[in-house]
Amino acid sequence: MTDWDILYASRMRSVIASDIRERMKLLDASEIIHLGGGLPDPAIFPYGALAASSAAIWADPARARTALQYAPSEGHAPLRKWIAERMTGEGTPCTADNILITNGSQQGLDFIAKLMLAPGDKAMVEIPSFIGALRAFDAYQPHYIGLPQDSAHWDAKALGGAKFCYVGPDFRNPTGTTMTLGERETLLDLADATGMALIEDGCYEALRYDGAPLPSLLKLATERHGNIEKAPVLYTGTFSKTIAPSLRVGWIAGPAYVIRKLVLIKQASDLATSALNQMLLLDVVQTALDDTIAQACLTYRDRRDSMVDALREAMPPGVTFTRPEGGLYIWAELPGEMDATLFAQRALTEHRVSIVGGAAFYPAGTGAIPGRTGSFRLSFSMIDADRAREGVMRLGELARQMTLESA
Amino acid sequence: MTDWDILYASRMRSVIASDIRERMKLLDASEIIHLGGGLPDPAIFPYGALAASSAAIWADPARARTALQYAPSEGHAPLRKWIAERMTGEGTPCTADNILITNGSQQGLDFIAKLMLAPGDKAMVEIPSFIGALRAFDAYQPHYIGLPQDSAHWDAKALGGAKFCYVGPDFRNPTGTTMTLGERETLLDLADATGMALIEDGCYEALRYDGAPLPSLLKLATERHGNIEKAPVLYTGTFSKTIAPSLRVGWIAGPAYVIRKLVLIKQASDLATSALNQMLLLDVVQTALDDTIAQACLTYRDRRDSMVDALREAMPPGVTFTRPEGGLYIWAELPGEMDATLFAQRALTEHRVSIVGGAAFYPAGTGAIPGRTGSFRLSFSMIDADRAREGVMRLGELARQMTLESA
Repeated sequence: MTDWDILYASRMRSVIASDIRERMKLLDASEIIHLGGGLPDPAIFPYGALAASSAAIWADPARARTALQYAPSEGHAPLRKWIAERMTGEGTPCTADNILITNGSQQGLDFIAKLMLAPGDKAMVEIPSFIGALRAFDAYQPHYIGLPQDSAHWDAKALGGAKFCYVGPDFRNPTGTTMTLGERETLLDLADATGMALIEDGCYEALRYDGAPLPSLLKLATERHGNIEKAPVLYTGTFSKTIAPSLRVGWIAGPAYVIRKLVLIKQASDLATSALNQMLLLDVVQTALDDTIAQACLTYRDRRDSMVDALREAMPPGVTFTRPEGGLYIWAELPGEMDATLFAQRALTEHRVSIVGGAAFYPAGTGAIPGRTGSFRLSFSMIDADRAREGVMRLGELARQMTLESA
Repeated sequence: MTDWDILYASRMRSVIASDIRERMKLLDASEIIHLGGGLPDPAIFPYGALAASSAAIWADPARARTALQYAPSEGHAPLRKWIAERMTGEGTPCTADNILITNGSQQGLDFIAKLMLAPGDKAMVEIPSFIGALRAFDAYQPHYIGLPQDSAHWDAKALGGAKFCYVGPDFRNPTGTTMTLGERETLLDLADATGMALIEDGCYEALRYDGAPLPSLLKLATERHGNIEKAPVLYTGTFSKTIAPSLRVGWIAGPAYVIRKLVLIKQASDLATSALNQMLLLDVVQTALDDTIAQACLTYRDRRDSMVDALREAMPPGVTFTRPEGGLYIWAELPGEMDATLFAQRALTEHRVSIVGGAAFYPAGTGAIPGRTGSFRLSFSMIDADRAREGVMRLGELARQMTLESA
């Protein structure tokens, strides 16, 4: 008889569903205040523009045929061109040859890991890091090393030998923090000195609520080396946060030489991204992207402000939290020895508030790191200010209760 | 400086674009008679049903929200349920828990290989096999072993130790041949005796033009073991050949226990398939699937007949070819020592006919196999009968010419 457990590759045997996901299924979802997930607010999606684009595609037989037939693995040519022109306009000169269309940026991260990682290869990541990136990389069994938080320690001798360093320069998931211009330059120095690549997760870049935009690593590297072809950076972008997630359209931008290799990976993995969705997306970015981004920034800025205010009011002394300049997340740390996994469990079961304990964002094998046990992530994107405030108040109550219990 | 070639994982260094793909780019595509690619005919796609479904989704705010927000990694629940009910109705009792939605069946093959293969693991395949499956498996570095063509040699002692055997029982790509009921039972015996899994590519199953349908391996295994949960089979299905490729919706069906593991792979690879496309698909299969399949079978049956007739007329003695009962492909073999790679090159450059030389369908490392150098694949799906006939006539001329040259 067939025993599937024996047939799994060893790297896949230990992969199990996250506790939180499973626990959520046991509870009636409607009564929970969700501060955990980072879904974009569907009220912002450009429904009218998408409906108009759909109708126009079905009304034109030639476009309808293109929308339903297999698309090129590298992506729908006019969309690749549009993205390249947009990036060029923002200061990163490139062409369609520098763009591969992917199913959201998650697929971009998977493909880059598939291209570069063999078991035991060193992969450098910020700690904590986006869970989705860690799960994508895990499948190729890297040995994780942490990029030190203090850029004074970004030393080529100590940090050599990694295939790549994965970073989210703008308001990254989960911490909401942003790399300074100096840190970006220092990281490029490190890449040049060690020969590693930089994987730049740009998925929140457009969602900036305060402060001046900073240049992407890809832009800085293109300036520094004179040409995107010489940049040691692969940039993953997405329309999931600016238009809508379920069109599943993102992209990788980088040297054409590397993009050609990634196209072959796309072909072997799922042939191509839906042509229909790429055509819808192209219509909509041309008419509605800037307005949709402006609307998203207005909405999310208010919610961030409201949540930061609520945290200031509700949290007992010793709880610290970030105030992100953009993106969807606030990162909080509990004082002393307080355990955030337990905190998240009790928040859900006793107070009906879902948050994500920070432990999930720390890659396997990177040992004891400050914040590993005591941190958690909040998102302000999906929920109106009053309900989020109620959730934060309940978390404050729990934090005070646990402080008393541990005293 | 960063040298990307050094950063690639070794398994990816040798991956290059196929010769044919590159050569095609050099020629003016409009003057070529394409008998190579196996694209479905866009004249058959159900445009009206898709336009109506789109309009209905955008007109309903709740459905529009669902269509654009992140979908569950396992797939849109009503579509999973519909597929399970359809498979149950066709004699394979199962539930939504037995179904994972993928981006076409190509992604299903990638995920199954990602789940099961470690470098050096044995993967058994029919020889020749679907190129897309080989490219998906290649990324996980299996050691290929060939399933002997004659089922009298399907011996558990000689063929043990493989993680799985990948087969296309119905009119498979590239040969167009179909496994008999006896071969299917013998293959299930082999799986039971060796403990390996069977990966059943069901992508052409609905496109049968002659003869009585045969039960799928999944159906036979479910009957044999009393329950899909005990079947050693993962079945990959797709709507690419029956509705339209660029919705990019397919599925894996199998034991729920294995599907749950594959859901985690889906999550790490690209989070989820487009909810919009799954909803469009569900609307369309409910109203138009059977009619679209009937129309496709009518169209493709005529084209197959016409191409088989043309081959009989045009080919010199010694050229053999299959007459498939369904699907999109005919497999031909040249006589003697004639080389099909050269034949395909000359067909393209001298006669402006594209075909696919058979060598691409033979997995690396499986050595000298009859048909390896002399075979090629023709497709009759995309092109009208007269133009296909003209293409076959030119191929016949070339075959006669090469016969004379080698005499």
